Formats: sequence, C-alpha cells, structure tokens
Amino acid sequence: VSEPRWSDGLLEAGFGDSATADALSWPTRVVRMIEVEAALGRALARSGLISQEASEAIDRACDPRRIDVGRLAEAAASAATPVIPLVKALTDASDGGPDGLGAAWLHHGATSQDIIDTAVMLQLRDALTRLESELLQVGDLCAGLAHQHRDTVMAGRTLGQQAVPVTFGLKAARWLGALDRRVEQLRWVRTRALTVQLGGAAGTSAVYGDQGLAVVEAFADELGLDVPDLPWHAERDRIVELAGMLAGVSTTVGSVATDLVLLSQSELGEVREAAGDAPGSSAMPHKHNPVHATAARAACRLALGELGVLISAGGEHEHERAAGAWQAEWVALPSGLVRTVGAIARLHAALEGLEVDAERARRNLDDQLGLSGSEALSSALTPTLGRARSQQLTGELARLAVTDGRSLREVADDDPNVTAVLDRAARNQAFDAAGSLASVSPLIDRALATHDRLRAFQERS
Amino acid sequence: VSEPRWSDGLLEAGFGDSATADALSWPTRVVRMIEVEAALGRALARSGLISQEASEAIDRACDPRRIDVGRLAEAAASAATPVIPLVKALTDASDGGPDGLGAAWLHHGATSQDIIDTAVMLQLRDALTRLESELLQVGDLCAGLAHQHRDTVMAGRTLGQQAVPVTFGLKAARWLGALDRRVEQLRWVRTRALTVQLGGAAGTSAVYGDQGLAVVEAFADELGLDVPDLPWHAERDRIVELAGMLAGVSTTVGSVATDLVLLSQSELGEVREAAGDAPGSSAMPHKHNPVHATAARAACRLALGELGVLISAGGEHEHERAAGAWQAEWVALPSGLVRTVGAIARLHAALEGLEVDAERARRNLDDQLGLSGSEALSSALTPTLGRARSQQLTGELARLAVTDGRSLREVADDDPNVTAVLDRAARNQAFDAAGSLASVSPLIDRALATHDRLRAFQERS
Amino acid sequence: VSEPRWSDGLLEAGFGDSATADALSWPTRVVRMIEVEAALGRALARSGLISQEASEAIDRACDPRRIDVGRLAEAAASAATPVIPLVKALTDASDGGPDGLGAAWLHHGATSQDIIDTAVMLQLRDALTRLESELLQVGDLCAGLAHQHRDTVMAGRTLGQQAVPVTFGLKAARWLGALDRRVEQLRWVRTRALTVQLGGAAGTSAVYGDQGLAVVEAFADELGLDVPDLPWHAERDRIVELAGMLAGVSTTVGSVATDLVLLSQSELGEVREAAGDAPGSSAMPHKHNPVHATAARAACRLALGELGVLISAGGEHEHERAAGAWQAEWVALPSGLVRTVGAIARLHAALEGLEVDAERARRNLDDQLGLSGSEALSSALTPTLGRARSQQLTGELARLAVTDGRSLREVADDDPNVTAVLDRAARNQAFDAAGSLASVSPLIDRALATHDRLRAFQERS
Amino acid sequence: VSEPRWSDGLLEAGFGDSATADALSWPTRVVRMIEVEAALGRALARSGLISQEASEAIDRACDPRRIDVGRLAEAAASAATPVIPLVKALTDASDGGPDGLGAAWLHHGATSQDIIDTAVMLQLRDALTRLESELLQVGDLCAGLAHQHRDTVMAGRTLGQQAVPVTFGLKAARWLGALDRRVEQLRWVRTRALTVQLGGAAGTSAVYGDQGLAVVEAFADELGLDVPDLPWHAERDRIVELAGMLAGVSTTVGSVATDLVLLSQSELGEVREAAGDAPGSSAMPHKHNPVHATAARAACRLALGELGVLISAGGEHEHERAAGAWQAEWVALPSGLVRTVGAIARLHAALEGLEVDAERARRNLDDQLGLSGSEALSSALTPTLGRARSQQLTGELARLAVTDGRSLREVADDDPNVTAVLDRAARNQAFDAAGSLASVSPLIDRALATHDRLRAFQERS
Repeated sequence: VSEPRWSDGLLEAGFGDSATADALSWPTRVVRMIEVEAALGRALARSGLISQEASEAIDRACDPRRIDVGRLAEAAASAATPVIPLVKALTDASDGGPDGLGAAWLHHGATSQDIIDTAVMLQLRDALTRLESELLQVGDLCAGLAHQHRDTVMAGRTLGQQAVPVTFGLKAARWLGALDRRVEQLRWVRTRALTVQLGGAAGTSAVYGDQGLAVVEAFADELGLDVPDLPWHAERDRIVELAGMLAGVSTTVGSVATDLVLLSQSELGEVREAAGDAPGSSAMPHKHNPVHATAARAACRLALGELGVLISAGGEHEHERAAGAWQAEWVALPSGLVRTVGAIARLHAALEGLEVDAERARRNLDDQLGLSGSEALSSALTPTLGRARSQQLTGELARLAVTDGRSLREVADDDPNVTAVLDRAARNQAFDAAGSLASVSPLIDRALATHDRLRAFQERS
Repeated sequence: VSEPRWSDGLLEAGFGDSATADALSWPTRVVRMIEVEAALGRALARSGLISQEASEAIDRACDPRRIDVGRLAEAAASAATPVIPLVKALTDASDGGPDGLGAAWLHHGATSQDIIDTAVMLQLRDALTRLESELLQVGDLCAGLAHQHRDTVMAGRTLGQQAVPVTFGLKAARWLGALDRRVEQLRWVRTRALTVQLGGAAGTSAVYGDQGLAVVEAFADELGLDVPDLPWHAERDRIVELAGMLAGVSTTVGSVATDLVLLSQSELGEVREAAGDAPGSSAMPHKHNPVHATAARAACRLALGELGVLISAGGEHEHERAAGAWQAEWVALPSGLVRTVGAIARLHAALEGLEVDAERARRNLDDQLGLSGSEALSSALTPTLGRARSQQLTGELARLAVTDGRSLREVADDDPNVTAVLDRAARNQAFDAAGSLASVSPLIDRALATHDRLRAFQERS
Repeated sequence: VSEPRWSDGLLEAGFGDSATADALSWPTRVVRMIEVEAALGRALARSGLISQEASEAIDRACDPRRIDVGRLAEAAASAATPVIPLVKALTDASDGGPDGLGAAWLHHGATSQDIIDTAVMLQLRDALTRLESELLQVGDLCAGLAHQHRDTVMAGRTLGQQAVPVTFGLKAARWLGALDRRVEQLRWVRTRALTVQLGGAAGTSAVYGDQGLAVVEAFADELGLDVPDLPWHAERDRIVELAGMLAGVSTTVGSVATDLVLLSQSELGEVREAAGDAPGSSAMPHKHNPVHATAARAACRLALGELGVLISAGGEHEHERAAGAWQAEWVALPSGLVRTVGAIARLHAALEGLEVDAERARRNLDDQLGLSGSEALSSALTPTLGRARSQQLTGELARLAVTDGRSLREVADDDPNVTAVLDRAARNQAFDAAGSLASVSPLIDRALATHDRLRAFQERS
Repeated sequence: VSEPRWSDGLLEAGFGDSATADALSWPTRVVRMIEVEAALGRALARSGLISQEASEAIDRACDPRRIDVGRLAEAAASAATPVIPLVKALTDASDGGPDGLGAAWLHHGATSQDIIDTAVMLQLRDALTRLESELLQVGDLCAGLAHQHRDTVMAGRTLGQQAVPVTFGLKAARWLGALDRRVEQLRWVRTRALTVQLGGAAGTSAVYGDQGLAVVEAFADELGLDVPDLPWHAERDRIVELAGMLAGVSTTVGSVATDLVLLSQSELGEVREAAGDAPGSSAMPHKHNPVHATAARAACRLALGELGVLISAGGEHEHERAAGAWQAEWVALPSGLVRTVGAIARLHAALEGLEVDAERARRNLDDQLGLSGSEALSSALTPTLGRARSQQLTGELARLAVTDGRSLREVADDDPNVTAVLDRAARNQAFDAAGSLASVSPLIDRALATHDRLRAFQERS
C-alpha cells in the first residue's frame, strides 16, 4: 500500500495504539470494503438474485492485490466517496465473467454507505476485541495491586486534603471495579453495534424486490455480523452508543492516570512509575516524571475530542443519508478508538512495575499529626456529647495539635473533656487505623471476584 | 419552599420539561437528602450500630417541614456543601432523643457526598421513569405514523438530493427503531446506575468497623436502590454511562426533529406541524413554522452541552473525592436531564397531529422527472450491458431528461440502446415504484413488533 | 416580575454570579425587548418613516409595568418566540395614538429576531461591564500577591515533580498576566460584538425601502450600540467570538484555581484559603478544604459546557434564520456568562485573604534534599565535562543523595569528579537559589506594569 | 524523513489541507526544533553567556540531515518528550567544538517545553499565513458572487420557510462579511500568539542569572517571533485564543457550506456545484451531490473536536508545567488546523464555478403564490387598519390564496377590505419585490469595501 504523508504526531508522541491504528487505518478500510463487495456477491447468489458464476466473477475481482490504495485514496478525495473509484477499479480489473461482462453484478443494489459502514463494522470488530483484551490486562494489573496492597495503609484524600486512612489495595480495587464495568459495557455495546448495513440508495433494498431482507441476512451471515432491524444510514445511535462507551473507557483511564500523577508528586511520593530507561528531563537529571500516566491523560483528552464529534454528529443526520455528519465519522471513529486504546496502553505501562512506597505512605499520614483520626474521635464522642459539641471539640483539638505540632492523639489524651468521656481503651479504639479499615478487605474481594468472572468469560469465548 | 431567583429562560423558552425539573430541582434535592439521612438512621439501627430509639429520634428530626430551603441554599453557597448546614439545621431542630442529645446519631459515619449522591439517585429514579414514559409515548406516535403511512410514497433523499422512493411509513419506522433502542439503553443503564453511595469520609466505612457492608445493604434496602460493588465517590463511570445514554436520546430526538424541519420546508411541504393556536411570525402572517421541531433541536443542543460536562468531568475525579469535577455534576446532571426530556416533549408536540401531505410528496417525486428511477434503470441494464456501460448510459439519459424537461421514462422509451435491451414489460418493471418498495413493509413490521414488545414490558412493570 | 419555578441549583451551589444572573435573566430580557421596541419607534420617526406622534404612542405603550412577564413567558413557550405575544400585549395595552390606532407602528419592519438579538446585546453590555470589573479585581489580588511574595521562594513543579525554585510572586504574576490578557481580549471582543440587529423578515429591511441603513443607524444611536456591516441573523460569528473569549476567561480562572487546590494539598500546605466561617467537612472536623477554588473549578467546567454549545451552534445557522441553532443561544449565552462570572467570583473569594506559608514552602524544597539544584549543578559542570557527562554525573549524584538521605549539595561536595571541576565558590554559586532567581523580579514588574496600564484605562473610561 | 504508518483517513477522505499538514507535521516539527536549538545558541552568544565558537559548534550540530526522524519518533514515544532524544542525537553527532566538548552548550538553560513550544510557534506562523491566504481567496469568490448576483432575486428563508425575497448577492455578501471578520480576528490573534517560549526548567531562566530577559529577546529576534511578557509554560491562554479563532473560522465555513447544501436540494435547485469529473453516486447515475460542501461540513465538525480539546485543556495546566494537558496540544493543535484549513479548501472548491440558477430561484418564489409579499401587504395596511387588524386580514388572505391556489396578489386585488385602503398603485408598491430590496445594494457595497480593504492590507504586507 502507498504511504500516507501526513502525521499528526499521534503515534510519534506515543498517544496512540499501533495495532488498533492498523486495524482501523484507511488502507485496511479499503481491504475491508473489497471483502464486503465479495460477500455481497455471495449473498446475492445465495438469495438467487444472481448466478453462482456471477458471484464467482465478483470473488475473483475482489482481490486486494489488484488495488492501488494510494491512487484510490486520491480518487476518493476528489469524489465524495471512495466507493465509486473502488467499484470502478474492481470492475475494470475483472476478467470476463459468465457473460463476458466481467464482474457486472458487483455492488449490485448497494450504495456507497452500505459498503463503507459494513467495512467499518469489520474494522471495529477487530478493534473492539483488542480494546477488551487491553482493558482486561490493565484490570489484571489493578487486581494484582489490590491483592498485594490490601493492607498497605495510605492517606485517603478528599479535595486534596488528607481525610482518613485507606489502603492502596482499596484504591486499586476501585480502579479495577471501574475498568471491569467498562468491560461489561463494551460487551453490551458490542452485541448492539456490530451489524451490517445494506439498504441500497435510500434504505429500501429497491433493487432486490421483495428479497431485501433475505439478502441482508445472507450478507450478514457471510461476514459474521448481526442483522439490524432496519437500515441505519441516518440513524447513527449505534455509533453514539459506541462513542459513549469509549468515552467511559477514556474517562476511567484518565481518572486512574490522574491518581497516579498525584500520588507521584514529590511531596507524596507514594507511587513511582518503573524507571525503565527513560531519562527524566532535558534540564533536570534528578527528575523522575510519571511519563506514562501523563501520556495516558493526554491521550484521554484527545480521545474525548473525537468522541464528542461522533456524539454531536449523531443528532445531525438528515433524511436517508446525511451531508456531512456521516462523513465526519470516517475520521473521528478510527481516530477516537486509536486514542482510547493508546490511553489504555500508556496506563498499562504506568501500572506495570509500579513502585508503591508503603513506608512513605505511612509517614505521610503520620506527618499530618494523626488528624485523619478526627472523624473517628468525633464519632466516639458523639454518643455522650452529641453531634454538635463533639464536632466543635474535635475541631478545637485539631487546631491545637497544629499550633503545638503535636499529634491529635497526644492532644486528645491531655484534654479533660475527652478523657472524661473516653477512657484509654476507647481512645485506643478511636485511633486504631486497622479498626477503621475492617470493612475494606471485603470490598477488595468483591472487585477481585468480578474481575475473575469477566476474565473467565473471555477465556471461554 | 422558597423561590429561586435566577431564570436562565429554559422553561420560559419552552426547552425544558417542568415535571423533570420539579423532580430534579434543588428544593427537591434537599427533601431527598433529608429522606436519605432518615434512611441511614434506620439502616444503622438495623445493623445494630445504634439503638432503635436513636433511629426514631433521627426520623423525627428528618422532617422537611422543619427546613427552610431558601436559607439552607444560602448557607450551602458559602459552605462547600449543602450537607453541613443541613445536618446542623436538622440536629438543631431535633428534640431530646433517647439520651437527651437529640438526633445525635444523625449522619453517623457518612460524608456529605454519601448524602448528596444518594439523594441524586432518588431524584434520578423519578426522572428516568418519566424519561422512559415520554420516550415510549413519542414512539407510539411514530408507530402510528409508520402504520398509517406504510404506503405513502415519498422521495428518499441523500445529501439533500432526491434518490429513490421510500415511504413515509419507513421513515417513521426508522425513527421508531432509534427511539426504541433508546428505551433499551435506558433500561440497561437504569439497572447499572441507580445505586446508593455510602462509604464515609474516604470510602472505607471507617466508623462502622466491620459492619460497613451490612449498613450499606440495609441503607439500599430502605431506599429501594441497588448496592454498588464499591463506594464510587471518585469513580463516576455510572454518571458517564448515564450521560452517554442521555446523549443517545438527545441525538436521536434531534435527528428526527431535523427531518421534520427539512420535510416542512416551503419547497417540500411534505409534513406540517399541527397548526395549534400559535401565530406564525411577528412579521409575516402567512408563515407556518415548524416551531416544535425547532425547539426540540434547540433543547437537544443545550442538553449535549451539559452532558459533555458530565462526560469530560468523569475523567477528572482524583483520589477519594474530587475538588471540582464532582461539584459540577450538581448542576449539569439535573440540567442535562431537564433539557433532554424537554427536547422529547417538543418532539412529541411536533409529531402529535402532524399533517402528512401524501399528494405533495408524490408531486415532488414527479417534479424531478422520475430521475429517482435511475438506479432501477441502470440495474436493469446491467446484466446485458455490464455495470460501467449501464451507469454511463443512464447518466446520459438523465442529463437528456433534464435538458429536455421530459421524464426519464419517456427518454428511456425513446432510446434505442435501452429498447434493444429492455422491452416494454421490463421497462415497466424497472420504473415501478411499488415494486421497488416491496421490501419496505416487512421492515416496518419489525419496528412495530419491537415497540409492542417494549411497551408490553413497561405495562407489566 | 413573576417568579420562575425551576432551579438547577447553580446559584444555590454557589457556582453563579447573582448580579450577572439578574442582568441576563429572562425577566430582564423582556424589559430590554420593550426598550428596544421603543427605540425602534424613535428611530423610525427620526428617519421620517413614521410621525413623531406615532413614535410617542409607541413610547407610551412600551411601559414594562404594563407587562405581566410570567404570563408572557407562558405564551412564549407555546409560541416559537416571545416577541409575538409581547407585541400583542404592548399593542393591546396601548392608548389611542395619533390616528386612533394605538401603537400601530410598533415593531414596524422588524422581525422577532431583531428585537431579541438587540435586547440580548443590551443585556450583554451590562454583563460584560461586570465581567471586566470582576476580572480586574481578581487581577488586583494577584498583583498584590505578586508584589508581596516577590521573594517568597517555593518549589517550581513540573509534571507534579519538584523542578527548580521559583517564587510565589512569579506564580501570581503569571496568573496576573493571563487574567490581564483576558481583559484585553474582552475589550477587543466588546468593540466587535455589541451591535444592534435590524433587518426585518430576511435581513433586507424590506419595509423601509431605501431607508434601511438610515433606520439601523438611528436605532443603534438610540440604544448606544454599534451598527453592524450587515444584518447577522444567521451569521453568529460575533457570538462565537464572544464564547471564545469567555472560554478564555473560564480556562484561565480554572487554571489558577487548580494551582490553588494543588498548593493547598495537605502534603504541600503552601497556601490556604482564608478560613472564613465555613466548617470544613461534615465528617472530619479538622479539615480545611479549598472550597472556593473547588467551586471555581466546578463553575468553569459548567461554563465550558454552555460555551461549547454556543460555539458548535455557530456553524449550524442556515439561510436567513436558523431553526434551532439560534434558539439554543437564548439559554446558553446567559447561562454561560453567569457561570463564567460565578467562577471568577469564587476565585476572588479564594484569593482574598489567601494565606501563604513561606516557611512551609521553603521546607518543602529542603525536604527534597536540594535536588532542585540539579539543573544548576549540571549546567556548571557542562563547560568542562560536556553535556552528556554532566547530565550523567548529576543523575548519579541525585540517586546517591536519595539513597543516602543526604542533600545533593553534600553529596556533590564529597564527589571528586565535582570538586575537580568546581571549587567551593563555584559550588556555592551553583547552589545559590537567590542567584537562580535573579531574572524573576523583572518578570514580575512587567506583569504589574501591564496591570496598572489596564487599570488606568478602565478608570479613565 | 521516515514515513509515518498510521493514516486516520483525513487526507484520503479529502478533509484536510496538505500544505498545512506539511507545515505542521511531526517531521517538520523536528526540523523546527533543530532550528530553535541553533537560534538559542546564537542568542546565548549574543548575550555573552557562551562564546562565539560555542555557538558555531551548536550551529554545525544543528543540521537536520544528521537526524533520523523516524528513529527519533520511536525514542520520543518511550520518553516523555522528543527533546531528550533529539538533544542527545544532536550532541552525539557534533564535532569537537572550541573546547573539544562538541556542542556542549546546546540546549543550555532551556527545558523541553521551551524548544517544543517555540518550534510549534514557527510551524504556526507558516500555517496561519496559509490560513489567511485561503480565507481571503474564499472571500474573493464570495465577493465575486455578491457582485455578480447583486440583483438575483431569491427567496429568503427562515426556519426553512420562505419569508420575503432577498438577493443571492446579499447572501454572498453576508458570507463575505463573516469570512472577513475571521481575517480580522486571525490578524489580531496572530499578533498575540506568536511568541517564543524560553524560561528553563520552571520559567525562571535560572541558568542565565540576571540575563534571562536579554536571552529571551535575542532568541525571539533570531527567530522573528515576539517576546512574551512572561514564560507561558502553564498559561495556555494564547492557545485557547487561537483555538477560539479557529473555531470561528470552522463555524463560519460550516455555516456557508450548510447554506450551499440546502440551496442545492433537488426541490430548491438554486445553486449547484460545478460538475467537475466526479461521478454522482455509486447507485444513482443521475445524482449531482454537493460533494464539496458536504466535505467542508465534515471537516468543520472534525476541526471543532480538536479545538474543543485545546480549549478545555487550557484550564487544566497546573503548577509550572502540566502533566497531560500540554502534551495533548502536540496533536490537537496541528490536527485542528489541518482540519480547519481543509474545510476552507473544500468550501473553496464548492464556490469555485458555483452555478446559480436565477430562473429557478425566481420560480421557487412564484410557486409559493407570492406569499412572501405578506409582510409588505400587512405593513401597507397598518397605517389605516392598525397592526392587529392588518395582520389578521393578511393572514386570512394568505390562507385563502393557499386554498384557492391563487397568488396572494390576486386574492388581495379581489378583497374589498384591501382595495378600500390601498389603490392599485399602493398595491403595486406593496408587491414590488424590487422596491423591497432597495436597501440591499448598499449592504453589499459595504461588504465589498471591507474585503477590498483587507485584501489591500495583505498585499502591502
């Protein structure tokens, strides 16, 4: 195939996924379109609309090696659609056929959009398979972290402030849960989206007489795609559903990557991407940047742009086929997917070999004077002092701790209002981080069990 | 409840749905938050963490009539969250309680986000019920049109050009199919999204010891919501899924509305909104504008803005609770839903009593000199002349028809190249619109059957 | 005016600006539309198209007190436009007029969109004045911080990692520069956007014969707005420019707010919002959340949603007036502005009384073992060792420092490769933070000077 | 340079501009980065920070022929930034230099983002020059149409309904006005955006001591770019302004393209793209699709996706350099520009040789029974009958005209209520389309004069 000239830097910058790019590229699309034309020929023969010989002539004509994709691309850019020059190239190159007319029945009854939409569905099928596999692999990494760091205590943070202790395992389990919900969503969308398109010029299968549905069914069977209820040239809701699912993937990935960037901050230092052989900075030899998480965030942003195009275009398809909204899909759909899977790939790289500094995490908590125990202290005081007074007293003690640079526990131990209500054992219990984490492990187990189930399903299929 | 002061003009302009607005308004949210606090109290008692008396004190405190929503709103705007002033107002107003401490255990172990997220889910449940009902009703109208206009021939149009004939019934069936896929999507998302939120300060249920899961289950049971696998304070993928579904609804509605605007054009005049009592124009007394379809399109655009906020915010939730991305949901979620349902309501108004001018539709086809028969003519010639020659010949005849102002049929009848290949019967068949529509009726039936099935499911439930 | 019933929670949540909301509300719009109708009457009289008496009858009719805005809103929602019921209400209520016909010439030659667009421009003028004033005030706060913390050393951070020292004053100066560029942009857009709309049914001023331009000029003069080159019913580029400017404001505000949230993190603690009287958390009495910066971020996200609606709608205006894209502006424009100014107001609150902890900032730098000196050390070694060797050596020393828990300076002092090249004085210079900041103060001065200039311009005008 | 492998189909589909793509491609970026490193070397020498010999060694090292862009791209994808491998490649390949250390001072005091941002500005400068030129050329075509069709009467249409007559020249003048406002906006943004970036690791020019500003000024002078007030690593408002301007261009182009698609509809047929040699449809030989306008619309949608990424990323740059938001610009900026200019190019193709069917336009008006005269008739009646009665009477006559299939003029001539008020001469005047267009020509002249002025400015510069 001929080489494209333009590079927007997506792959060069490491924000795309090469395998997905290959599956969804323009050259691949041309190959898929040729397969689709051949399948249509076979479907026509199965439906009795053309002869077996005519179908075989089409099959012979549909040989990707006969097509110069580069020249086709040029012709496509001046036509409104690549299909016209493609059909011409295929028929021009065809041999005699049963009636000396070559592949005369090629493209019979179809419209350009039938061929392109169906070819895109074949491309999508491959890309979604890869997407699922990548999602599950990132999930595996999260599952490993959830398991391994089930008890690694770390500050929970809300609005950027230390709140109460969590474990890193719980964080990873939450990531895992979100990723696995994406797998479920993907599987659902997959069953809804992957349908053939075949309706002819205006979706009536006009040329097929009353055989319209029969041809569509044979066509879908040839390609291993589903039969849609109706032609969907102008009803792009399947594409919008797909885009919505990909937006879910992108935002889930972006959210995890954001956590990694934040946990990697110099002042937190609780995680650190595996060093690899990448230098840190062109100016500062000491730096260790979260480069993969950063790239994942960039790729997510980029993906959302294309997915937004798909979503908003979905409401602008008019009549039987749209003038503009459909054509935008030609670019936004592959590009949106390549960016989404690119984001996953970079998150994968960020998580693989992630170093978790449990000691630093514990120290960060301690550095905050045990203020993360304030919820527990206040709760312990509430039954006796009531909510308002407990909150107020705890607030005063927290401020005193900060002023004096002592831990909240020490300050509480010294305060008669507290000691009057809570004896040492009660105070021990209130400030017991492990006790406050007693509900965490079961949560992690739930996430792991779901992941195992989704994994098993894939391995079976 | 107190009256809000600000009006963005959404309802005044007729772009929102009042019932959805009521279900999702800020005052309603406060009422829901109070219900949530009460449910939490009962759940704590069921789990044995507080006494039955304490729960009853909470129940007594949680009386919406005790709350001045207007004052609460003011307090909320200066706090980061409405929950703090709400809890204060509830406890301040509570009576003695079992221990003389009033509703001391109110909000026990919860964080603000637990209360707000769960209250929003209760609001959402109502709003989604209304959304489904509205969608099905618009589907009913489309089903009626599909049935009634099964055989109303109309020009199919691609890129704005007349292509081949369709029927208006097929158009309506395609709309119906898309709307019904939204009902399916809504039902699926509903089962995934409507879960309680309860995890305490950082999602660990710290205050509940090892009873975290038990409390969550009792809490969900009290409210009739689902139990999530894990707390989801910072994993907003359910909201993103919801937003994706709503975007699907908006774009589907927008697409149908766009068709109505285009079919209503003066020069097409194939449909016309029921006149109602609305004057046409402030300047032009003769005009009959598609006002409801226009409003539906505006509402869809507006909805997509808010839904885009929800989607993009989904990737920016950090740590255990986000500083900004979450708070944006407070506004974008209700507003996005009100706009979406508003769009449906206006589409409903546009379709109700829609006048379809079958005669005009037929005349529009005829005015184009029967050029829409070119696909059929070319297809009929193909077996004998081959594809390339058939296309070329048909193109020449079409241009001749335009030049001479004669119909394509007449020109074809006079052309020896055609008559040599196709006898009169064959030409009759090629130009037979009814024959070209033989596959249409089964497609309509498929759409109607799906709608009946979805309807039946709803009526059962 | 009547009270609207729907509340999306924008103001309740503290994400909007009340004064802007008042200026842009639907009730205010109605008042502005009435002013516009009156101005049109006077312009028609000045152009000699109607008599002075007729104009005076219009003036008398155009009395906002005669209008029930609530009832008008209801009528507007069922019409396509509020203008038809408004004109009817005004004329119904008018007295005899010169010819016994009441305000017969009211709305003469105008179309609904003329009235609405011009009324919106009057609303916008007020809102942009407030926007500019708010921007300048936030700039004042940044200028104060830039001046006061000119020499407050703080870690510069890239990709979340400590890089080299900066000063907090430089940070504030960079914020100031960005805010002041918004003021410049606002002033430029203001001169381009604030034009009247007057073209009649299709922009031809058909009813005014050859007096079209004369009427427009008198109309603009009456209202103090500019005269556009051409009617712009379907050319919404001024709105898109405006939306682009507001997006610039929102993202600038969002970026500063993000910095505040990050600098406020427990582990950094370099800034802290003034405590005010807001409690910190419903669960954790010790917390001090950056509530205003958080709200500013939420408001920015919300603003961008509406602004995106305005931008994308800008490309969908067809023919002489659009069916949907225009109507969406009715809501998105006021809402976008209210959210944008709301974001500024919350940033204002965050910056006002901001506590900067210079000691903590210095300690954070020191805690990183002086690694932020690595750029300087490597640069100092380069002339002798070459770039590659210097980077490598510095990297090794940095890793050693981390391993040993010693400062980079100590490690470098002990390394013969370093001491062979750099004597003590040279090492002192390399590790001299003050020296590395010698270029900072002039940068701050540049930002302050620009702000003074912009301030002076406003005070003059 | 090496060939990229991935093709998203943008150029193949004809939605991008090749020349802009070349200017902004990744390979070109690498070449620009090398130029930037060389310019920095010269600036350092001019500022006295390094010797002339050292600068010359840098100049020699900065030879694009020494760089394997393909290998660099691979290295870049695994690093966080392409600059680190680039600097390594340049220094590795450098010869001895003054001190035997090769280009030891290459990249001195700079950070990766300095080099990339400045290189992008050089790319942008070229791309904006092309953008302006393309905009002006499309403006020329509109100016030609405005001039030529000054008096070509056509139906004005609002909400898709015929309103009152306009001329095609006025339409083209409105398009021209909007395009020329884009030229003005572009020129303004150009003066604001094209600045160098140079601040070192955290924007303090730490390595340059107090020479920071001097180096920046020499650097900018070497490259012919402007000096920014402050480093702008994390203040991306210039990029947001640029994106806002490009969104203005895209939406303006999209709006004109939409008009062309609509005017080309079979039932309107008022314009028609020049036939060229493109076949119409793969299924329907007679079709003449508006293929260029369609492609322009698709390209605009695609552009808006990338521009939205740039805008929203603008609010997410944290601290001194961002982890994700900045990197997204690497792709979204070039891609957004390529798509925008691609849209212009397709609009250019649509307008070039556009066929305007004046006779058909007139016939379309007549086919509507002269109802477009209703505004004029009602206005003529108003002075005698008052507004309400005139509107009502005209509405009745319009409905009668439709019912009877007679023209509004005929019906009015027969109605005693009309003839009692308007004599024949007055009725002639009311129904005189030319009279209703008397204000149009001056509007066209205004647009043409502005275009001439902008053209002259460009030719001078």
